[in-house]
Amino acid sequence: MRQALPREGAVAGGTFLYPVRVYYEDTDAAGLVYYANYLKFAERARTEMLRRLGIGQERLRADSGTVFVVRRSTADFLLPARLDDDLVVATRLAGLGAATLDLDQEVRRGDTPLVRLNFQIAAVGANGRPQRLPPALRAALLSLNGATTMVTAHAR
Amino acid sequence: MRQALPREGAVAGGTFLYPVRVYYEDTDAAGLVYYANYLKFAERARTEMLRRLGIGQERLRADSGTVFVVRRSTADFLLPARLDDDLVVATRLAGLGAATLDLDQEVRRGDTPLVRLNFQIAAVGANGRPQRLPPALRAALLSLNGATTMVTAHAR
Amino acid sequence: MRQALPREGAVAGGTFLYPVRVYYEDTDAAGLVYYANYLKFAERARTEMLRRLGIGQERLRADSGTVFVVRRSTADFLLPARLDDDLVVATRLAGLGAATLDLDQEVRRGDTPLVRLNFQIAAVGANGRPQRLPPALRAALLSLNGATTMVTAHAR
Amino acid sequence: MRQALPREGAVAGGTFLYPVRVYYEDTDAAGLVYYANYLKFAERARTEMLRRLGIGQERLRADSGTVFVVRRSTADFLLPARLDDDLVVATRLAGLGAATLDLDQEVRRGDTPLVRLNFQIAAVGANGRPQRLPPALRAALLSLNGATTMVTAHAR
Repeated sequence: MRQALPREGAVAGGTFLYPVRVYYEDTDAAGLVYYANYLKFAERARTEMLRRLGIGQERLRADSGTVFVVRRSTADFLLPARLDDDLVVATRLAGLGAATLDLDQEVRRGDTPLVRLNFQIAAVGANGRPQRLPPALRAALLSLNGATTMVTAHAR
Repeated sequence: MRQALPREGAVAGGTFLYPVRVYYEDTDAAGLVYYANYLKFAERARTEMLRRLGIGQERLRADSGTVFVVRRSTADFLLPARLDDDLVVATRLAGLGAATLDLDQEVRRGDTPLVRLNFQIAAVGANGRPQRLPPALRAALLSLNGATTMVTAHAR
Repeated sequence: MRQALPREGAVAGGTFLYPVRVYYEDTDAAGLVYYANYLKFAERARTEMLRRLGIGQERLRADSGTVFVVRRSTADFLLPARLDDDLVVATRLAGLGAATLDLDQEVRRGDTPLVRLNFQIAAVGANGRPQRLPPALRAALLSLNGATTMVTAHAR
Repeated sequence: MRQALPREGAVAGGTFLYPVRVYYEDTDAAGLVYYANYLKFAERARTEMLRRLGIGQERLRADSGTVFVVRRSTADFLLPARLDDDLVVATRLAGLGAATLDLDQEVRRGDTPLVRLNFQIAAVGANGRPQRLPPALRAALLSLNGATTMVTAHAR
């Protein structure tokens, strides 16, 4: 099934699935994927998820000055990935605030979860201050998991 | 004062201070340090701290098969670093278990904290199973902040 | 047509074409792809080309101890790539010696060449010494451009 | 002697020497420094050399719109560097044209050359066109090897 994933990813059951092949550049002398590189894989997947939802980050910035900024990340490293592994990054919307997103991401090899990540992301305007998410953007994000409303779980 | 930090870092008041200069390779098209790269800076600092404490990771592996593995990381991105910034990574031992370390790290520009990180690190043997930290290693780690005993704060 | 390229690449007219999307991790504060990262793109393309030719680098090492090592690289940076660009790396066999490969690679955006690269690659045995390319490997490489013989142009 | 090199490097006998420690992030699953990362080391050294010569790249861009762009690079990979190696990047001015620099760089471990690199660099204005090097900049570069004139060797 992973074979069938197109390189720009696909939505399945409320989750965005994005494929990542492990190359030499991703590994380190321990023979495993270097730990910070899972955050690169996660960012690639978020970018393609937004593109899939019709959210061009470049256009959003040009039109409204809005950019997405990671405020907080957590990562649980369960099992290592290795050279040549064909991985999938699964991304789910875990929360949606007025100006924030909360995303759960999981790097998997087959059905085995390797790394679990969470990202708290803020929309920020050109002035650097929190920016309400445009309605079209909220709708696109909620459409990912078929919901039309969602209460954020991060009262920050 | 940062000028005076040697490139291999120094201990001051129970904290290990390690200097990092920001080069083009560390930045991204937003003009800021790419978020995953702070984890690289943190790993450099941990490596030099261990070297400073007389813990050669290569020798430890050769002698006892023990390697350090990051189990969990958290990062709070407060303010961005930029090209040419002269940063310091401050590292403190936050907890010490039988086979685990808990380290708080902070990336600073001058006195301003930019990123706060925490790493839960396990000692693992050649068989992949948790490995008790050798007494000499425990003593070296505790010597960092002048303590001789420390109760781990892992239960969270 | 680039849209149609599968993520593992494809052969067309004696050239192996491999798609690369530019993410934030690839760019720097100048707003362009950081120059060393084109060498990463090129290595990804070479890996997929070998996989396509049925040459598993891991198996080759396990079976015969043979690994490929870059001896020399040149890169001409003609035009910059930018965030979100959808690039193609085109790879051609430029020469084949007893124990060496010579590959020309070009990073393109549409029909526009951005970076031209050449890599001289040696097959090396477990002992670190040059290793003759196995006949099956030579045949696979030559099949790429439909040739059955090729004289190397690098009398080193 | 390498121990004595300050982290921002030093000039010795017409050569700029810059120290680089190899961390996990620099290595790959072959246990060696990943080949593209030598270009990062080289860029760090060039940046510190310019800073040492009083050439702030940010100020140069702000004052005159001039930026430095790598046009061509070559790299000969002689011997591999490994985790924990304490390397030095030696940089020499090989040629100076009206709007171009030619730099030879060598990555060394002790007295052993590991990688030899050459970079042809152009000064480019805000309009993207070649820009004559300001006289103060030329003088600073020539002061590196004690010369006051130099004929470029670019014709190759």
